[in-house]
Amino acid sequence: VPYLRNCWYLAAWSEELAHASALGRTYLDTAVALFRDESGVAAAVEDRCSHRFAPLAAGKVVKGALQCPYHGLRFNAQGQCAHNPYGPALRAMGIRSFPLVERSRALWIWMGEAKDADPALVPALDYFESVPDSAFSAGYLHGKAHYELLSDNILDLTHTEYLHPGTLAAGFVGKVRPTIEETEAGIVLTWFVPDSEPLPLSRKLLPDLGRSDLLMRVEWSAPATMKLTSGTLPLGGAEADGYLNHNLHVMTPETEASAHYFFAATRNYRVEDADLNATIAAARAQIFSTEDLPIIERVYERMGGRDFWELRPVLLRDDEASVLARRRLARAIAAERGTLPPAPPEP
Amino acid sequence: VPYLRNCWYLAAWSEELAHASALGRTYLDTAVALFRDESGVAAAVEDRCSHRFAPLAAGKVVKGALQCPYHGLRFNAQGQCAHNPYGPALRAMGIRSFPLVERSRALWIWMGEAKDADPALVPALDYFESVPDSAFSAGYLHGKAHYELLSDNILDLTHTEYLHPGTLAAGFVGKVRPTIEETEAGIVLTWFVPDSEPLPLSRKLLPDLGRSDLLMRVEWSAPATMKLTSGTLPLGGAEADGYLNHNLHVMTPETEASAHYFFAATRNYRVEDADLNATIAAARAQIFSTEDLPIIERVYERMGGRDFWELRPVLLRDDEASVLARRRLARAIAAERGTLPPAPPEP
Amino acid sequence: VPYLRNCWYLAAWSEELAHASALGRTYLDTAVALFRDESGVAAAVEDRCSHRFAPLAAGKVVKGALQCPYHGLRFNAQGQCAHNPYGPALRAMGIRSFPLVERSRALWIWMGEAKDADPALVPALDYFESVPDSAFSAGYLHGKAHYELLSDNILDLTHTEYLHPGTLAAGFVGKVRPTIEETEAGIVLTWFVPDSEPLPLSRKLLPDLGRSDLLMRVEWSAPATMKLTSGTLPLGGAEADGYLNHNLHVMTPETEASAHYFFAATRNYRVEDADLNATIAAARAQIFSTEDLPIIERVYERMGGRDFWELRPVLLRDDEASVLARRRLARAIAAERGTLPPAPPEP
Repeated sequence: VPYLRNCWYLAAWSEELAHASALGRTYLDTAVALFRDESGVAAAVEDRCSHRFAPLAAGKVVKGALQCPYHGLRFNAQGQCAHNPYGPALRAMGIRSFPLVERSRALWIWMGEAKDADPALVPALDYFESVPDSAFSAGYLHGKAHYELLSDNILDLTHTEYLHPGTLAAGFVGKVRPTIEETEAGIVLTWFVPDSEPLPLSRKLLPDLGRSDLLMRVEWSAPATMKLTSGTLPLGGAEADGYLNHNLHVMTPETEASAHYFFAATRNYRVEDADLNATIAAARAQIFSTEDLPIIERVYERMGGRDFWELRPVLLRDDEASVLARRRLARAIAAERGTLPPAPPEP
Repeated sequence: VPYLRNCWYLAAWSEELAHASALGRTYLDTAVALFRDESGVAAAVEDRCSHRFAPLAAGKVVKGALQCPYHGLRFNAQGQCAHNPYGPALRAMGIRSFPLVERSRALWIWMGEAKDADPALVPALDYFESVPDSAFSAGYLHGKAHYELLSDNILDLTHTEYLHPGTLAAGFVGKVRPTIEETEAGIVLTWFVPDSEPLPLSRKLLPDLGRSDLLMRVEWSAPATMKLTSGTLPLGGAEADGYLNHNLHVMTPETEASAHYFFAATRNYRVEDADLNATIAAARAQIFSTEDLPIIERVYERMGGRDFWELRPVLLRDDEASVLARRRLARAIAAERGTLPPAPPEP
Repeated sequence: VPYLRNCWYLAAWSEELAHASALGRTYLDTAVALFRDESGVAAAVEDRCSHRFAPLAAGKVVKGALQCPYHGLRFNAQGQCAHNPYGPALRAMGIRSFPLVERSRALWIWMGEAKDADPALVPALDYFESVPDSAFSAGYLHGKAHYELLSDNILDLTHTEYLHPGTLAAGFVGKVRPTIEETEAGIVLTWFVPDSEPLPLSRKLLPDLGRSDLLMRVEWSAPATMKLTSGTLPLGGAEADGYLNHNLHVMTPETEASAHYFFAATRNYRVEDADLNATIAAARAQIFSTEDLPIIERVYERMGGRDFWELRPVLLRDDEASVLARRRLARAIAAERGTLPPAPPEP
């Protein structure tokens, strides 16, 4: 199955790449060296020196360029050889560079045609820009699974009931039904649970909470960007009056068999409380790394390298959102390649 | 090389599977979830949920059924969906189940045609049933080798002289000859060593032992079940008057390249002595895991994925029993598949 | 790409193989057991018993022969079965043996046609024979890379400037040019740096050193033997008046994807100083294992299993020596196989 290429993929959190440093990561089977110059500008080039194939990300930033750790050739943000210690820097020494945009505390990379890399297409995550550090946390996990299994997981919140009983289980399975909306941008899945106990984790963080209306809304867009708004609202009250957590889940394929899982969160309450922020960040990282990721990696293992549809999954009512998302992505890939989309079975 | 399918394979020791628990293990390339309900009845089903392919053995037993750890579907001993939290439990949600019989402290699984799974065919190991816990021990090792290399090892006791010099070497190589008998059930290899020093391990366990007659008898039946009777008899005395150890060695293929190695033992002396029992169990586990298994795994490595016969082994006099067993198994597999057996060279 | 077969490969340092012991190592995809008998004579045989394929190097030396750890067959230096505990030792039980010569503190093996194994062709390393133990050290590293990448590394000393800044960087890049000479035996690369600061490592070992002339000379011969003379000479003085380190770097292919890296050193100064010797040995082992090998292994990883030339490396001025060596080796392999050599691009 091919990748969607002409889109922005989350490459790294801004905080992962210090000034005058480099970071090697593979996207869509391609090894990339991210680097940030001394003034803070980030760039992305092929992580393989044109000379002897050394990994450039193991090198260091010198005068705004990335210097090969082996023989000292330097490459600038455009992939041009900026310095050759042994003679003239020739055009033929250049390597591939990739469009990179830094926005909303993240670096976004474009792995397709560079001419189509329109910065206006970077996902808008405005609430990450205006929020203080004390109300923002970001995390990264490497997953040994196809990236769509990771996005399926967010688009199907019923799993919280079984996988996260002590923290995120809301007891709504079988009681209420979600709404699913197809928009131009993607798919919006909304669960509203009136008059419920708060989530166990919410109650731990905010002990005064009583029965509330619960809101969970996932806004998916291709290839695998999900904004997840999780709210605890006053009974019968408005969304804006609730405690709202704005979570982001983004998966970037590393290979067919592995993915980068980026997550982040902010909130509309106690935004100056750095301790609360650290507690939330630690709880999330703990849940994702010890509960979600292990089961998804084992699912992928069980699939034995075969395609999801080929294995004929039994689809349940609550697979609707993830199946719609899989179709949208398949259509987008087919459109990009000029082929007809595959037709998955109805859920 | 195909597997023999229509036979009982040892799946686990009874003691490995607690009440209301599950255990995942792969047999003949197929991932299986064993589980035992709250009342103690064991069952075996495919270890892959029909919904999203999660490993069911990572789940828990709820109301006699195995509940998927990811989204909560439950499957009963027949593989039927017993509970679907999101709607009706449909026949189409079912998964494969496998005949399972619990007998003589072990669970036996049938990986072939379910209709042929006759419990009367389970290997009879009566002495494990009547013996107290203080005279029984069982062990399990995972081996990275083809299972026939592990059964060859038991059918060729001359290796004890070189591989186990301080514990099981009896000094009989080149002094006596074994008898080999082909029976309907399989092959019986018997070594009788008159007027010998006891095995070093026997002398450690029973310091009063003087010169004795030694008996070692292996009763092999396909695919890889071996009862090994090891006796230290009074000089010129009857078998029943000796110190007898009834050992069992059974290999179940996991894949072509790996095997489950099950072993167990009981004895006819000091059967109430739990300390002696623990000492014997520890010595056996130590020998098998640090002496037999490593060399067999390295042999398999050296074979480089090639077939045993294709490598043209030089066969020695004492390979006769193992070669006969290999032939019997090849014939049984060919008979099951309706093809002619391969003809290995004479030993 | 095939190997050069009819040549002597360094198999082990003499000190790696004690009297009456064995050592298993793979050369050119072939598993070999080296063993040394009780009197000190070393031999090389296939590391796979003809009987049950056990690794003979895991056995022990008994009466001048290597005894299989599994069933006790013994093989002599010619690979003949010297003892079969179960019957007569037959010619058919023999295994392959390999010509082996011990010279200059090393064991050299011939993996090609045995009839062509002329001991006179063993590389001459006379200075290792006459030197006291206090002025000799040898080391071994296992590298997960094609062996030619390891020899390229020695033939291109400019990398020291970037990879070894605190120890071996002489600051000569861009200041002087080396000479390269093609001889019948191979290729000689010479760097001479007049009036230079000594290498950082030299200054640490010999604190009184002032500005000196520096000499680095690599004498390469196929397949991958390199004598590296590293000298710190009095300004304008003769080579013989300098502090000279005679280093040896030899790579023996294990597989296409891995290599044995042997290195050793002696010197012409303070040859009785065992402490200095240990300090030099430790510094070299540290540099090779933490700086050279990791980057070369990552280069090999980046090459993704593809051929060096197929990846179209950008070649710089200082790749000349390594490219000449690659051509010489390719020609030698082609000559051995009776085929035309590939024609790599000009550097």
